[in-house]
Amino acid sequence: MNTPEIEALIKILSKLPGLGPRSGRRGALHLIKNKEKVLSPLLQALTTVHEKIKVCDTCGNLDTITPCNICLNAKKEAGLLCVVEDISDLWAIERSGTFTGKYHVLGGTLSALEGVGPDDLNIKPLLERIRNEQVKEVVLALNATLEGQTTCHYLNDLLKEYDLEVSRLAHGVPVGGELDYLDDGTLTAAFKARRVI
Amino acid sequence: MNTPEIEALIKILSKLPGLGPRSGRRGALHLIKNKEKVLSPLLQALTTVHEKIKVCDTCGNLDTITPCNICLNAKKEAGLLCVVEDISDLWAIERSGTFTGKYHVLGGTLSALEGVGPDDLNIKPLLERIRNEQVKEVVLALNATLEGQTTCHYLNDLLKEYDLEVSRLAHGVPVGGELDYLDDGTLTAAFKARRVI
Repeated sequence: MNTPEIEALIKILSKLPGLGPRSGRRGALHLIKNKEKVLSPLLQALTTVHEKIKVCDTCGNLDTITPCNICLNAKKEAGLLCVVEDISDLWAIERSGTFTGKYHVLGGTLSALEGVGPDDLNIKPLLERIRNEQVKEVVLALNATLEGQTTCHYLNDLLKEYDLEVSRLAHGVPVGGELDYLDDGTLTAAFKARRVI
Repeated sequence: MNTPEIEALIKILSKLPGLGPRSGRRGALHLIKNKEKVLSPLLQALTTVHEKIKVCDTCGNLDTITPCNICLNAKKEAGLLCVVEDISDLWAIERSGTFTGKYHVLGGTLSALEGVGPDDLNIKPLLERIRNEQVKEVVLALNATLEGQTTCHYLNDLLKEYDLEVSRLAHGVPVGGELDYLDDGTLTAAFKARRVI
């Protein structure tokens, strides 16, 4: 019905995460109606990202240089490594400003269902880094999902051979969270890990 | 925290309709992770749309040519004009394949609150078309919102001077809709306009 040019744009937009056919159409229309204010800047930003952003050879983060700025940052504690599933987790931890070490992006989790084995993840490069960078502590900051926890156990077993401390994030009541809305698993974990005040 | 290049992209994506800061970040990451499969085609589609798509001088539709393919389509009934608020409404009606005439996009609705008066809409060009194209029927396919109905009344008054039939879309129970979920206004309209079967 529409011109093929607009339909092509709608089709691509519809497949972005969080968008569907309807919001894809709305997005396309919004872009076309605001050519100078929205479409042009988006084109510019996409072109820049396409040309400049690459994956860091060391940790798997995204940056304009490799090794990335986090890997090169001298203020980051040497020997402290945080293992995450995805780049978005790395971003989240960096936003919180709570972690002082460097990162290692696995690129997923082990999953028998989806056929993801140890060789499909960045596990070998992790072991290499542990050997080469004199890593003293590894924080396994994996998601508290079934796959995340399976991967966490697998890595923990693997890392027992090395002379280092392996930790995982604490489970418990989210700050600001109401008990009434929590699932049983989280409540049980929070009770088990209760602390004297 | 991120590189400015990625932040710029996230910022623009976050402002698209239906997206927010979180989905903007997810979208940006998805694009960067799938450079060849998603980012490149999106760049291509946006470039094409930016270069080729223009607003039809006659009806306000979007196309690669002006007058647009709908205005030029000889199969479209001459003298039958459907007035819509926005291009998305035109698209919706075209998708349904139910209307055989041509369109006129107003570009909005009258709104005292937002300071939109008759001169801000494509009303003058509509009157010109009615004079020049020997229009015999105008369907006011405006949204059943307060602003849409205000605009509908205004146009109806305006069109009384002309020798033509003015109609509006029927109000009633949506096909497939359950009465229990309908608002009172729609139910009242459906009862008022009930038909003998």
